[in-house]
Amino acid sequence: MISDRSEVTKMILSAKVLKGIKWKDVAEQLGKSKEWTTAACLGQMTFDKAQAETVGGIFGLSDEAVAWLQIVPYKGSLPTAVPTDPLIYRWYEVVNVYGSTIKELIHEEFGDGIMSAIDFSMDIQREPDPKGDRVHVVLSGKFLPYKTY
Amino acid sequence: MISDRSEVTKMILSAKVLKGIKWKDVAEQLGKSKEWTTAACLGQMTFDKAQAETVGGIFGLSDEAVAWLQIVPYKGSLPTAVPTDPLIYRWYEVVNVYGSTIKELIHEEFGDGIMSAIDFSMDIQREPDPKGDRVHVVLSGKFLPYKTY
Amino acid sequence: MISDRSEVTKMILSAKVLKGIKWKDVAEQLGKSKEWTTAACLGQMTFDKAQAETVGGIFGLSDEAVAWLQIVPYKGSLPTAVPTDPLIYRWYEVVNVYGSTIKELIHEEFGDGIMSAIDFSMDIQREPDPKGDRVHVVLSGKFLPYKTY
Amino acid sequence: MISDRSEVTKMILSAKVLKGIKWKDVAEQLGKSKEWTTAACLGQMTFDKAQAETVGGIFGLSDEAVAWLQIVPYKGSLPTAVPTDPLIYRWYEVVNVYGSTIKELIHEEFGDGIMSAIDFSMDIQREPDPKGDRVHVVLSGKFLPYKTY
Amino acid sequence: MISDRSEVTKMILSAKVLKGIKWKDVAEQLGKSKEWTTAACLGQMTFDKAQAETVGGIFGLSDEAVAWLQIVPYKGSLPTAVPTDPLIYRWYEVVNVYGSTIKELIHEEFGDGIMSAIDFSMDIQREPDPKGDRVHVVLSGKFLPYKTY
Amino acid sequence: MISDRSEVTKMILSAKVLKGIKWKDVAEQLGKSKEWTTAACLGQMTFDKAQAETVGGIFGLSDEAVAWLQIVPYKGSLPTAVPTDPLIYRWYEVVNVYGSTIKELIHEEFGDGIMSAIDFSMDIQREPDPKGDRVHVVLSGKFLPYKTY
Amino acid sequence: MISDRSEVTKMILSAKVLKGIKWKDVAEQLGKSKEWTTAACLGQMTFDKAQAETVGGIFGLSDEAVAWLQIVPYKGSLPTAVPTDPLIYRWYEVVNVYGSTIKELIHEEFGDGIMSAIDFSMDIQREPDPKGDRVHVVLSGKFLPYKTY
Amino acid sequence: MISDRSEVTKMILSAKVLKGIKWKDVAEQLGKSKEWTTAACLGQMTFDKAQAETVGGIFGLSDEAVAWLQIVPYKGSLPTAVPTDPLIYRWYEVVNVYGSTIKELIHEEFGDGIMSAIDFSMDIQREPDPKGDRVHVVLSGKFLPYKTY
Amino acid sequence: MISDRSEVTKMILSAKVLKGIKWKDVAEQLGKSKEWTTAACLGQMTFDKAQAETVGGIFGLSDEAVAWLQIVPYKGSLPTAVPTDPLIYRWYEVVNVYGSTIKELIHEEFGDGIMSAIDFSMDIQREPDPKGDRVHVVLSGKFLPYKTY
Amino acid sequence: MISDRSEVTKMILSAKVLKGIKWKDVAEQLGKSKEWTTAACLGQMTFDKAQAETVGGIFGLSDEAVAWLQIVPYKGSLPTAVPTDPLIYRWYEVVNVYGSTIKELIHEEFGDGIMSAIDFSMDIQREPDPKGDRVHVVLSGKFLPYKTY
Repeated sequence: MISDRSEVTKMILSAKVLKGIKWKDVAEQLGKSKEWTTAACLGQMTFDKAQAETVGGIFGLSDEAVAWLQIVPYKGSLPTAVPTDPLIYRWYEVVNVYGSTIKELIHEEFGDGIMSAIDFSMDIQREPDPKGDRVHVVLSGKFLPYKTY
Repeated sequence: MISDRSEVTKMILSAKVLKGIKWKDVAEQLGKSKEWTTAACLGQMTFDKAQAETVGGIFGLSDEAVAWLQIVPYKGSLPTAVPTDPLIYRWYEVVNVYGSTIKELIHEEFGDGIMSAIDFSMDIQREPDPKGDRVHVVLSGKFLPYKTY
Repeated sequence: MISDRSEVTKMILSAKVLKGIKWKDVAEQLGKSKEWTTAACLGQMTFDKAQAETVGGIFGLSDEAVAWLQIVPYKGSLPTAVPTDPLIYRWYEVVNVYGSTIKELIHEEFGDGIMSAIDFSMDIQREPDPKGDRVHVVLSGKFLPYKTY
Repeated sequence: MISDRSEVTKMILSAKVLKGIKWKDVAEQLGKSKEWTTAACLGQMTFDKAQAETVGGIFGLSDEAVAWLQIVPYKGSLPTAVPTDPLIYRWYEVVNVYGSTIKELIHEEFGDGIMSAIDFSMDIQREPDPKGDRVHVVLSGKFLPYKTY
Repeated sequence: MISDRSEVTKMILSAKVLKGIKWKDVAEQLGKSKEWTTAACLGQMTFDKAQAETVGGIFGLSDEAVAWLQIVPYKGSLPTAVPTDPLIYRWYEVVNVYGSTIKELIHEEFGDGIMSAIDFSMDIQREPDPKGDRVHVVLSGKFLPYKTY
Repeated sequence: MISDRSEVTKMILSAKVLKGIKWKDVAEQLGKSKEWTTAACLGQMTFDKAQAETVGGIFGLSDEAVAWLQIVPYKGSLPTAVPTDPLIYRWYEVVNVYGSTIKELIHEEFGDGIMSAIDFSMDIQREPDPKGDRVHVVLSGKFLPYKTY
Repeated sequence: MISDRSEVTKMILSAKVLKGIKWKDVAEQLGKSKEWTTAACLGQMTFDKAQAETVGGIFGLSDEAVAWLQIVPYKGSLPTAVPTDPLIYRWYEVVNVYGSTIKELIHEEFGDGIMSAIDFSMDIQREPDPKGDRVHVVLSGKFLPYKTY
Repeated sequence: MISDRSEVTKMILSAKVLKGIKWKDVAEQLGKSKEWTTAACLGQMTFDKAQAETVGGIFGLSDEAVAWLQIVPYKGSLPTAVPTDPLIYRWYEVVNVYGSTIKELIHEEFGDGIMSAIDFSMDIQREPDPKGDRVHVVLSGKFLPYKTY
Repeated sequence: MISDRSEVTKMILSAKVLKGIKWKDVAEQLGKSKEWTTAACLGQMTFDKAQAETVGGIFGLSDEAVAWLQIVPYKGSLPTAVPTDPLIYRWYEVVNVYGSTIKELIHEEFGDGIMSAIDFSMDIQREPDPKGDRVHVVLSGKFLPYKTY
Repeated sequence: MISDRSEVTKMILSAKVLKGIKWKDVAEQLGKSKEWTTAACLGQMTFDKAQAETVGGIFGLSDEAVAWLQIVPYKGSLPTAVPTDPLIYRWYEVVNVYGSTIKELIHEEFGDGIMSAIDFSMDIQREPDPKGDRVHVVLSGKFLPYKTY
C-alpha cells in the first residue's frame, strides 16, 4: 500500500543505484530536459500517463507506483529549512547573500512583481575553463507584475 | 560613530531614494557589473579605496562611511531564514523544490563536489517574450571537487 | 533620513489615528479598491507617482516619505512566522487545516500548478445574516500550470 | 491496530489513487460540498455514522477504520509551520502579505473581533478567463466580536 | 508620534508604577471586570471612547495615546512562543500536559468544535485554603461546533 | 517489547475506538475525576497498581502494558510547541493574549510566585446557555510564593 | 520614563562596573544570601520596600527605579533558548545529558512529582582541591507530588 | 542488527519495567553511584567491559547489546531543546531564571572560566523536612579558567 | 531495498561494533587518512569502486550497499542544528565564540573571501602534555577570494 | 552609561576602522597572540587591568569602557544559531559534515571525553601554495575524560 509519492521516489532512487541508470538517459527516453525529468523522478513534478509508464518501465515500478507518478505531489525536496548539504547550501547562500541584489535589479528593470518559479525552466551545463571547469546555470522565469485593482 | 557596515547600507539606500539614483548608473561609473555593484552597495561585498570613494561621491557619504565600505562585511542580506518577500521567496522555493535535482545533475556531470558561491558570477537580463517578458538569469560558479587525502 | 519603507508605514499609521482617517476613504480618493489601497498603505504594494502624492497629501507626509512610497517594498506584514493575533491566526489556521484540501481540489480541477498570489485580488464584504453577520471574502488568483520542458 | 486518524487518511489516499476516485464524486455520494468532504477525508473533520459508512464503502475501509472516521481528529494538515509546497505556500504568502490588510479592513467594518474559522465555509470554483482561467475562492466566516465583561 | 499600541502600553505601565495604581481600582472606575480591564490596559483589547478617556485620566495619557486606546491592537502579549516567565509557563505547561485531555473531554461532551477564545471570559480569585491559599480560575467560552456544508 | 509509555497510550486509544469506551465511564470505574483519569490514560499521569489493573481490564491490555501504566511518564501531550489543532490552539491563544493579564492579577493579589501546575486540578462542565451552551472550566492551583533566603 | 524592569537591571549593571561593587557586599548589606540577592538585582526576583531602598542607595538609583525594583518582573535571564555563553551552556548541557537521569532518580525516590523551582534555594561555594578548585553547588527544592482527584 | 546506542537504551528500559529493577540496585552491583549508573544505562556514559557485562546480566541483554554499551554514545537525553516534561523543565527554568546569577557569582569568585560538565559529579538525596521533604542536589564541577596565550 | 546512503552508514556502524573494527585500520587498508576514511564511512564522502569494494569487504556489506557507497551522499552528520553531544558542541562553541575572530584574522591576512571547506583537509593527533594530553587538530583549507566582475 | 560589554565592542570596531588599526599590531602591543587579542577585543575574553588600559589607549576608550573590558562578558559572537556569513558558515559546515568523524576519532584515540574549548588555543597562518595559498589553522585543546564516580 503506497500512501505518499515520497515512497515512489525511494523506489526510483533504489532502482537507479542498483541498475546504474543515469538521469540524462531517462530524460532522453522521455524526450524531456534532464532538469525537468530529474525533478519529476524525485517527486517534485507530475508525469502524464505515457510518461509515467515509461518511467515505470525504466525503474521497474509496480502499477500502483506508476499510478502515483501521475498524482500531483506535495512538493519540497529538502529535509530542513536551511539545507545542510554543502552543494545545496551554496544555492541557499546565493539567495541569502544576493537576495536583496536580485530583488533590487529585477525591480529596477521590471517594476514591482516577481520572477515566476512555476512558468520557469532551468538548464545546467558544464562550462569548460582552463582554470577549472564551471557549472553554468540558466534560469528563466516569466516576470509576473503585481496589479492594482 | 559607525560600528557596523549595515549602517552605511542604510545611508546608501536613503540617498538612493532621495536622489533617484539607479544601480546600473552606479555600476557604469564603477566599471563593474550591475550585479556585483548592487551586492557591494547593499553591504555584501568589499570595495577597494578608489571604488569606495566613487561610491561615496555618488551617494554623498562621509569619510567614515567610505572607510567602512572597504571593510569586509558580515554577509547575509535577509532578515529571516525563510524569506517573506515574494520575489526572494520564489528563489528560496527554487532551491527547495529543485535542490535535490540540482544536486543530482551536478554530481552526474562532475562527481562529488560543489558549485562555488565565491568564485561565482551572476547576470540578470530581460528576455523579451510575446507571452510576457521573462527574467533570464545566468549563474556561473567554479566546480570544486571534494578531494581524498 | 528614511532608509526603509516600514518607517513610512509607521508615519501613515500614526497620522491615521491622529486624524481619524478611514481606509475606504483613502481608497475612494485613489480610485482603487480598499483592499489594494490598504495593503499599499501598509507597505506591501508600490504606489505610482500620482498615487503617492495623493497618499502623501492625505496623511501629511514629507517629500522623502512620498518618494519611498514609490519604491518596491520588502514584503511581509507579520512579525512572526506563526501569527499571534487571533484574527490573523484564524487565516493561518484555515491554511493549516484546509491546506491539503485546497491543494487536492485545485489539482483535481486544474492539474498541477498554483493559484497565483501575484495576479490576485481580494474583496472583503459584510454579509448580513440573522444569526450574526458574516465576513464574506472573495479571492481570485490566476491558475498557473507547471510546464514540462 | 489503528491508533491515530492519520493512519486512516493514508488508507483513503492509497485507495483513491489505486481506484482513481474523485473527491467531487465522493462529495456527491455524501450529499455534501466537495470542500467539506475532502477536508473530512483528509482527516480534518468528523463524519457521522452514516457518512463514515458511505466513505468506508467508497474506499474499501475496515470496520475499525470506519470507527475512526467518527472520532474527532487532531487537526492540522501540513508537515511544517511554513509550508514548502508552492500551491499551499501561496496561501501562506497571502496571509503574510495581506494579513495586516485583512485585519485593518475587518476591524474598520466590524470593530474588534475575528472571522470564525469554525463557523466557516469555503467554495472553490474555476473562473473562466480569456487571459487564463482563474481560481475563484469564496470564504465565509461568522464575525465574532470580542465582548467586554 | 505614536505608531503602535505597544507604545501606549509602556506609558500605562510606567505611570502605574510611578503612581502606585492598582488594576482593580482601574476596573472599578471603568465598571468592568479586573480581567478585561487589565487585558485592555496591556494592549490586548479595545476601549470605547468613554473608557479610553477614563483610562487616559487615570494614567495621565496624551490625547494621541487616548486615540490609540480605541484602535484594535495587534494582539499577543508574550515575547516568545514558549514563555520564559515561570508563572506564565505554568499555564503553557497546563496546555501542554492537559491539552489532549481537554480536547478529549470537550469532544466527548460536545462533539467536534472548539471552546471560543473570543466569546470568552475569565475570573481569577483567591481561594483560601488552610494548606496554602489557591488561585481559583474560572474560564467560560462558548462552544462553537464545526458545521458540515 | 514496550520501551515507552506512549506505546501504551496508543493501545488505549486503539481499544477505546474499537470498543466505544467513554472516558467518563473509565473515570467512574476508577472512582476518580474524568479530568485526571483521561490525562492518566493519555500518558500524562501515573496509575497505582490497582488503578492500572482496572484500566488494563477495561482496555484489554497485556501485563507488560499494565506495568508501564505504573511508570512515571515523560510528560507533554502535544506534537508541536505551538499546537496546530484549533481546540487546543484556543487555549494556547488564551495564554498568549491573556498571559500578561493573568500574571499581573495574580501578582496584585498574591505577590511574587506562581500558580502551581502540579498541586492543581481542573473541572470541565457544560454550561447551558440559551445563546449557545458554553464550556465552563475551573482551574485550581496552589499559590507558591517565591521565598527570599 | 521606565516601562520595564530590564531597564533598571541595566542601570544596576552599569553602576556596578563604574563603582566596582561586589554582589557579596550587596548581599551582606541586605542580610540575604548572595544567590538570591544577585538574582534579584539581575531582575529575576522582587524586592520589598526596605530592600529596594537599600539597593537604590548602593547603586545610586532614582526613586522611579526603586519603585520598579518592587514590581514582580517578567522572569527569564537569557537571550536565547539554548544559551551561547559557555559557562551557562554547561548548565544547559547538564540538563540535556543528565535530564533523564535526574527524572528517573527523583521518581524512584519520591514517585511522580517535581522538584520545585519556586520553593527553591541555591548555594554556590569554592571547593578547594589540589587538582584544581571546584565549583560546589547545592540546590534544594521542595518535592511537590502530583495528586489524583 | 543494532546501529545506535539508543536501541540498547530502549531494551534496558523495557527490561527494567518488566523485571521491576531499581537503579540503585544496579548501581550497587556495579559499585558506582546511582547517578552515574543511571546516566550510563540511559545511554549517556560509556561502560567498560566488566561493567557492560554486569549490566547485560541484570537486564538480560544480547552480546551485541553488551558490545554497544562499551561504545561512546552520541549524548543528549531530551527530545526537544526546551523540555516539555515538568520535572525536567524546572531544571531548565533554573538555568533560565538563575543563569545570569550563576554566571556572575562564579566569575566573582573564580574569574573568567567555566564549571566543567565533564569533570563533574552529581548527588541527589531526599532531605526530610516537616513542611514537606525536599530534593537535595549537590553538583560539583572543576573550575576551568580561560587562559591567555 | 536501500534508498538512502544513511542506511549503509547504519550497516557499517553495526558491523564495526560487532567485529570490533578500528577506523585507523580501515584507513590503512584504503591507503587514505583516517579523517577522510571515517568521514566517508559515516556517509559524508564518496568512495570510488575499488575503495567501496574494500570497505564492503571489511564490513561485510551486500553488493547493493557497496553500490550506494559510490553514490554522492546528502551530507550533514548531525541530528540538530545546535548539536547536543558535548564533544561536538565544543566545536560549535568554538565557531560561536571565536567565529568573529576567525573572520577578522583571515580577512586581515587575505582580504575578502573564505577558507574552503571542500578543498580542505583535517588531521587529528594526540599531543602528549604532562598536564594532561591534548587534542591537536590541523585544518587546512584553500583561501578562495571573492572576485569583482 | 554603558550596561553591556557589546557596547564597548562597537566602540572598538568603530575606532579600528576610523584609525586603520590592525589586530596584529594590537596583539604585539599586548604581548599576546593575535587570536586571543582579537577575541578579547571582540568581547569574548576578559582583559586584566594593564591590558585593558593598553587597549583603551590604542582605541581611545573612556575610563568606563576600560572598566568594562575587565568584566567577564556574556560570550557568543554570532547573531544567529546557523551563521549566514559565508566564511563563518564554512566552519559551521565543517562541524556539521565532519562532526561525527571528529567524535569517532577522538574517542578511538582517547576514549570517552571531550576536547576542551576553554583550555584551548588557536593559531591561524597563511600557508603558501603554488595552487593558491591556504589558511592553516591549528587548534589545541586539552582532552578531558568523563569520570565514573
